[in-house]
Amino acid sequence: MPLYIKSIENLINEFKKLPGIGPKSAKRLVYYLIKQSPKDIEKFAQALTDVSQGVKFCKVCFNLSEDEICYICKSGDRDTARICVVEKVSDVSTIESTGQYRGLYHVLGNLLSPIDNIGPEEIKIPQLLERIKNSEVEEIIIALNPTVEGESTAAYIKKLLSPLEIRITRLASGLPVGGDIEYADEITLSRAISDRKEF
Amino acid sequence: MPLYIKSIENLINEFKKLPGIGPKSAKRLVYYLIKQSPKDIEKFAQALTDVSQGVKFCKVCFNLSEDEICYICKSGDRDTARICVVEKVSDVSTIESTGQYRGLYHVLGNLLSPIDNIGPEEIKIPQLLERIKNSEVEEIIIALNPTVEGESTAAYIKKLLSPLEIRITRLASGLPVGGDIEYADEITLSRAISDRKEF
Repeated sequence: MPLYIKSIENLINEFKKLPGIGPKSAKRLVYYLIKQSPKDIEKFAQALTDVSQGVKFCKVCFNLSEDEICYICKSGDRDTARICVVEKVSDVSTIESTGQYRGLYHVLGNLLSPIDNIGPEEIKIPQLLERIKNSEVEEIIIALNPTVEGESTAAYIKKLLSPLEIRITRLASGLPVGGDIEYADEITLSRAISDRKEF
Repeated sequence: MPLYIKSIENLINEFKKLPGIGPKSAKRLVYYLIKQSPKDIEKFAQALTDVSQGVKFCKVCFNLSEDEICYICKSGDRDTARICVVEKVSDVSTIESTGQYRGLYHVLGNLLSPIDNIGPEEIKIPQLLERIKNSEVEEIIIALNPTVEGESTAAYIKKLLSPLEIRITRLASGLPVGGDIEYADEITLSRAISDRKEF
């Protein structure tokens, strides 16, 4: 559709780059924005600029941070004897939202995947090892997705850390709360059986 | 979910304001953006700024424009005897994309809706009347949606213009091309019958 308004076409193209937003949605969003006041659009632009300029990765745990060290690593209030290993920065806020965990994190940034040329060096595993050696960590909690890549990354970390005297745990697998046995897949169900607990 | 990174939370809030984007999608889009280079995020911000600063409404037809007068009104190449009345700016590009229409446009910006306090003054109807009186318009094509508001706005315009000697037409209603009689609603089907054409 020819618009002949370069700035609108540019903005539609920027929205189209986002995941899950196609040409029609992008157009709809831009026409919505145009109806807002220039001040509101400017606020959106400023929010983007702030993120592009102000957000970096924590030097210790590789979580997102506005400073060199993130608010979790900096906090005097956390259980520094526990490190929870996650794949992505968004996993940190997901786990934080449970309010169940008071330890530290280590964000790998990705999972091991030989096909995609992602080895241990690419996913902050050396940094994790370094961190453990330099502190009094007692437990590593592996909170990676129960997928092929997640499981193999977990297995690799377990093997690597086994010479050190620390506890290695991982998130429980089993039936989702509110789930139905009838709809659980065989692997989840068999793990739920083998990991059964005293009642 | 507490993030404690003000700039990220701000950006998530900006995305949440867009239609059809909820808290989870907004978070996903922002985490996607953070993974891009700061230069790419800055490009997005610049595209927003360009739109907020550079896009205004054409003084003649109220289509979007980068100048006082839009490219359609300015073009020497259009049939100035015809004005197509549409509801929204996006309708202009939709009709343009058919390549079927070479006349001018008039964008109302909304439809008459007494409940929402939208009267003729709010939707550029006086400006349409003024435009018709000051030019050699021969035909007004009403291209409003066949909804209650669209129909009543069309009826209002028709009544208003009837003292003037100009042709008033509107888009044909009927079966969509590729549609199925079985699935057409009664009103569409009855309009298709009453508006039947020689074959």
